[in-house]
Amino acid sequence: MSDQLRQRLFAELDSIRLIDPHSHIEPKAATAKTLADILGYHYYTELIHSAGMPRTEIEEPGIDPKEKVRRLVARIEPLRNTVQYSWLLELARKFFDFPADEQLTTANWESLYDAAATKMAQPDWEQQVLDRTKLDAVFLTNNFDDPLEGFDTKRYVPCLRTDDLVFHLAKGDVHERLQRTTNTHVHDADSLRSAIGRLFEHFTAKGARACAISLPPIFTPVSVGKAEANEALDTVLRGMDTIYTRSDHTFEKDIATAANYVFWTLAEFCDEFRLPFDLMIGVNRSVYRDGVYQGQDLYDSRVSLIQYQELFNAFPRVTFPISVLASVTNQELVSYAWIFPNVVTNGHWWYSNTPAYIEHDAAARLEAVPQTKQIGYYSDAYKLEFCLPKFAMYKRILAKILAERFVIERGWTEQQALELGRRVLRGNVEQIFNIA
Amino acid sequence: MSDQLRQRLFAELDSIRLIDPHSHIEPKAATAKTLADILGYHYYTELIHSAGMPRTEIEEPGIDPKEKVRRLVARIEPLRNTVQYSWLLELARKFFDFPADEQLTTANWESLYDAAATKMAQPDWEQQVLDRTKLDAVFLTNNFDDPLEGFDTKRYVPCLRTDDLVFHLAKGDVHERLQRTTNTHVHDADSLRSAIGRLFEHFTAKGARACAISLPPIFTPVSVGKAEANEALDTVLRGMDTIYTRSDHTFEKDIATAANYVFWTLAEFCDEFRLPFDLMIGVNRSVYRDGVYQGQDLYDSRVSLIQYQELFNAFPRVTFPISVLASVTNQELVSYAWIFPNVVTNGHWWYSNTPAYIEHDAAARLEAVPQTKQIGYYSDAYKLEFCLPKFAMYKRILAKILAERFVIERGWTEQQALELGRRVLRGNVEQIFNIA
Amino acid sequence: MSDQLRQRLFAELDSIRLIDPHSHIEPKAATAKTLADILGYHYYTELIHSAGMPRTEIEEPGIDPKEKVRRLVARIEPLRNTVQYSWLLELARKFFDFPADEQLTTANWESLYDAAATKMAQPDWEQQVLDRTKLDAVFLTNNFDDPLEGFDTKRYVPCLRTDDLVFHLAKGDVHERLQRTTNTHVHDADSLRSAIGRLFEHFTAKGARACAISLPPIFTPVSVGKAEANEALDTVLRGMDTIYTRSDHTFEKDIATAANYVFWTLAEFCDEFRLPFDLMIGVNRSVYRDGVYQGQDLYDSRVSLIQYQELFNAFPRVTFPISVLASVTNQELVSYAWIFPNVVTNGHWWYSNTPAYIEHDAAARLEAVPQTKQIGYYSDAYKLEFCLPKFAMYKRILAKILAERFVIERGWTEQQALELGRRVLRGNVEQIFNIA
Repeated sequence: MSDQLRQRLFAELDSIRLIDPHSHIEPKAATAKTLADILGYHYYTELIHSAGMPRTEIEEPGIDPKEKVRRLVARIEPLRNTVQYSWLLELARKFFDFPADEQLTTANWESLYDAAATKMAQPDWEQQVLDRTKLDAVFLTNNFDDPLEGFDTKRYVPCLRTDDLVFHLAKGDVHERLQRTTNTHVHDADSLRSAIGRLFEHFTAKGARACAISLPPIFTPVSVGKAEANEALDTVLRGMDTIYTRSDHTFEKDIATAANYVFWTLAEFCDEFRLPFDLMIGVNRSVYRDGVYQGQDLYDSRVSLIQYQELFNAFPRVTFPISVLASVTNQELVSYAWIFPNVVTNGHWWYSNTPAYIEHDAAARLEAVPQTKQIGYYSDAYKLEFCLPKFAMYKRILAKILAERFVIERGWTEQQALELGRRVLRGNVEQIFNIA
Repeated sequence: MSDQLRQRLFAELDSIRLIDPHSHIEPKAATAKTLADILGYHYYTELIHSAGMPRTEIEEPGIDPKEKVRRLVARIEPLRNTVQYSWLLELARKFFDFPADEQLTTANWESLYDAAATKMAQPDWEQQVLDRTKLDAVFLTNNFDDPLEGFDTKRYVPCLRTDDLVFHLAKGDVHERLQRTTNTHVHDADSLRSAIGRLFEHFTAKGARACAISLPPIFTPVSVGKAEANEALDTVLRGMDTIYTRSDHTFEKDIATAANYVFWTLAEFCDEFRLPFDLMIGVNRSVYRDGVYQGQDLYDSRVSLIQYQELFNAFPRVTFPISVLASVTNQELVSYAWIFPNVVTNGHWWYSNTPAYIEHDAAARLEAVPQTKQIGYYSDAYKLEFCLPKFAMYKRILAKILAERFVIERGWTEQQALELGRRVLRGNVEQIFNIA
Repeated sequence: MSDQLRQRLFAELDSIRLIDPHSHIEPKAATAKTLADILGYHYYTELIHSAGMPRTEIEEPGIDPKEKVRRLVARIEPLRNTVQYSWLLELARKFFDFPADEQLTTANWESLYDAAATKMAQPDWEQQVLDRTKLDAVFLTNNFDDPLEGFDTKRYVPCLRTDDLVFHLAKGDVHERLQRTTNTHVHDADSLRSAIGRLFEHFTAKGARACAISLPPIFTPVSVGKAEANEALDTVLRGMDTIYTRSDHTFEKDIATAANYVFWTLAEFCDEFRLPFDLMIGVNRSVYRDGVYQGQDLYDSRVSLIQYQELFNAFPRVTFPISVLASVTNQELVSYAWIFPNVVTNGHWWYSNTPAYIEHDAAARLEAVPQTKQIGYYSDAYKLEFCLPKFAMYKRILAKILAERFVIERGWTEQQALELGRRVLRGNVEQIFNIA
């Protein structure tokens, strides 16, 4: 009975048209060109590397896409149990008619590769994927100097990503890019603030619907006075690469002060421009230094939202859709969203984006956070093809929770359960990000 | 099959007469006067505020109870998914004949309000609620200077709440109230100890069955020598309000020392007077400063029971019923109760008092903590009407765990499962708190 | 349907012949002599002590085994709910024909005691237990100065346990035993390294398949230069007991430096000798100082695998099978095993070895860690008889996860599910520990 109920609920949830509120899609190359773009997703390369394939074989420069897929498939057997591999099979079945009862092997990969290449070469492939996925719009992750031109910003919704500004202002070409894109001489707190303001003007003019950032577990935002900011920026903006490589703790303190100044300024502009500020909390970058591309980041689960109390108190009008990296932080997220009007739960991020964690975390949210304050899911995808299997995974779990915890245990009608499902899947995305 | 088994077990568990080992009931105003006392429970005001209703509208001074309910109901739709809202509906159905298939809306709130008011005005309303809930006794949360007079202390069991003494001795009128109620000039460690002893005499004479306190995540109890205590108290007891507002770290250290002295002294008297010491571990007060009344507290889940190792070692004869605020601390609680004879698991507190967390936490306890060392549940209620739906939630989850994890998976008979259920629901409360 | 599926999967999993990759079995006294060896397992003594039996009654010196069992059984009723008690009943039923529907009581303990004694006295009892458990081999926990002689090292696989070397070099007779067993004058970093090298030669010559250690939550391994090591060892190796009892922080720093030097050297030899290095992370020793033997250890769940990032980066060729003490660390373990090729998940340790935690933790691993990188379970047993019920518990949970999360939810065939089960139960043990 419960199984059939889950099926019915899933079927209904699966008919809902989606807006994906966070992805890394490139709007001018939204879909894959070959299966190498699919198997090149870091989930596969890092898991295959973790299972024993040397990085040099995975990342050989200039390698032919077909040869790359051949190599990866030859080492993919250890991944068959993973949910990430199930995304791959579902994608292959739904988009490329891959047989339902087959594994991906050295015997059949080439026909899949060719079938995929043929479909991907069709001029309307992008539209086919969007239609099949029932996807109306996808949020992007745009560098602050992205011109945001040449694509339909209603379909591919701009989102101002700010990691570079907050954490890498002293590094590489960030300062230079900021000056160029804002046409501003950035040399102190005021000019930096003014430049950031121009970014917000540009992004909101282009239809941006969120400001976003990923944050390390150690980060605790505080307000920084202008004098203190100026002192820190004097070093940070002058120093750049040379100083950045020094192991000089004074300098590190200045970088931290500058980071706080920029972060707080971003929150102020989110307030002014009425833009939600997506916080993705808890990642440590480059933990595994010999990992494959995008497969080096891990975390320290000892992080608390108490670190954000000053921020949440200071900006009551800014909505903070929050993602946490570790499931052990999810209860704090539930509690903070239950108390703070400006805190909203946002999807299931990265290492928590697997069924056992999604189920535990989503159930807790659905039971204790107002239904208007929950963004159910985002794909985090780099290629459009992944939206379908990733959302499908979430919808199956959502159907399970609604069936077991609402219809059976709380006596809800299926209709009531589906209304809640629609809200977290679609309605809240529209409302929270102000999409007409 | 499993569903019917759960129903049967629930029906049996639901027939057990209860003692509620922790509440905030006022014995002389135990039940609600109007629905405003029900909807005014902080769970509703804080969730409705979190969902967007301004605090000023919720907490308008002198507002008429009926108008207050009207306003809250008008904004309650976002809470329909929450388990807290389900308590409200169950309460309305069980006590006020609210229709089983209706939501609380602007269309039907007034008839519910009037029906409730009529019932609440009946002279035996309190007895009706107790009977309907099968409630034999309820533990209170009494201020240290409560005279404990004018009510039946067998039904409303006194409990010495000590947060003020430990954490606010330098603040407001605490020192003054302590001197007055104990008729003692409190000016140093000895006189403070003597005053505290008088509180224990008074409370135990009146039938108190526990001493209780809630503790911030940072607290790590240590024994403080008398000389050190005297030095700290010299500042703390003299200083009071004026000094308390100084941001002087020496003073903060004195407050911490005084807190430790008082806390350790409480444990000594619990030993002497054979009183269990309820520890509710992990709350940070006033995190959301603009929150509604009682809706400002959150937590830092980075707390460990290792902080209490000296306490547990030092007081082998004191029973410590322990509640933890975050589910991530529950496994430590299970392990510490499994090892320390004087550590007992106690209910599901506040932010962990929702089904997904109760189920995960209670299952782990039932599998690994001796059955005599588990207090299943307490209501934490402010009005008697809430005991029924809150205990019902727990009993449904307990029935589920007993059905799935004991009867089905471990081959227990239903009778054995029910015996375990009776023990954690009722028997252990009697035994641990020494109730005849 | 799901229940029958679980039964079928369990039956198949239960037919797999096992290798137990971690135990405390003594190879020359592998099985129990009387039921006192069974009920003397610390799980029972500590739980019975926790439930109220004084330590002096449990640990009375020279007590007759039968009297000991009588006493423990008289106090065992509070444990009936625990999974540890269910191991005891399953063991009694499977090995000693204890009736399926009886509890262990003062009325029937003696006939069980006698039945067990008779069986245990049979000359082939050890073989009977191995056969009944379908156990091909069991890993040991050997002191570094164990001669490893007088037993079949194919059946009882040596494993170099190194807690003493890392954490107690300054204590008791550790230094002395190391010098004696390696015939080396250990007086500085070089000679210490040389002595450790001899241990690896000895152990690998005797067929050791792993190096192992348990680690406190505070430990963060770092590489130590030789000069620094020499300075620290100069104190540590000279000081011994007298200095160890001083509360001198300089000395504590030297102990920490020496610990790091030894630990890092062990990892270097694991690399050289191609030996996996089992890390059991998170235990605090002697937390409950008046606890029974082996019932004094607890933990601080605030530990992170980020503490091991330098180690994992520095030794890419060493496989680290990792156990974590608290379930809240399991997601980090999943994530680190998903990213680092040399990190492998290993069993369900101690306080996490109860069904609710195993289920949550194992499900997360099976969904996201390559199937070749998971060691499902080890018994941690002190007597062979415990391998059967402990593995049975795990196999039932594994069957449940495979049934619900793979066959039903992901549409796997039962055959595919069983292949995954075989791999984590047996195949990976062979592969990871290089067993022919």
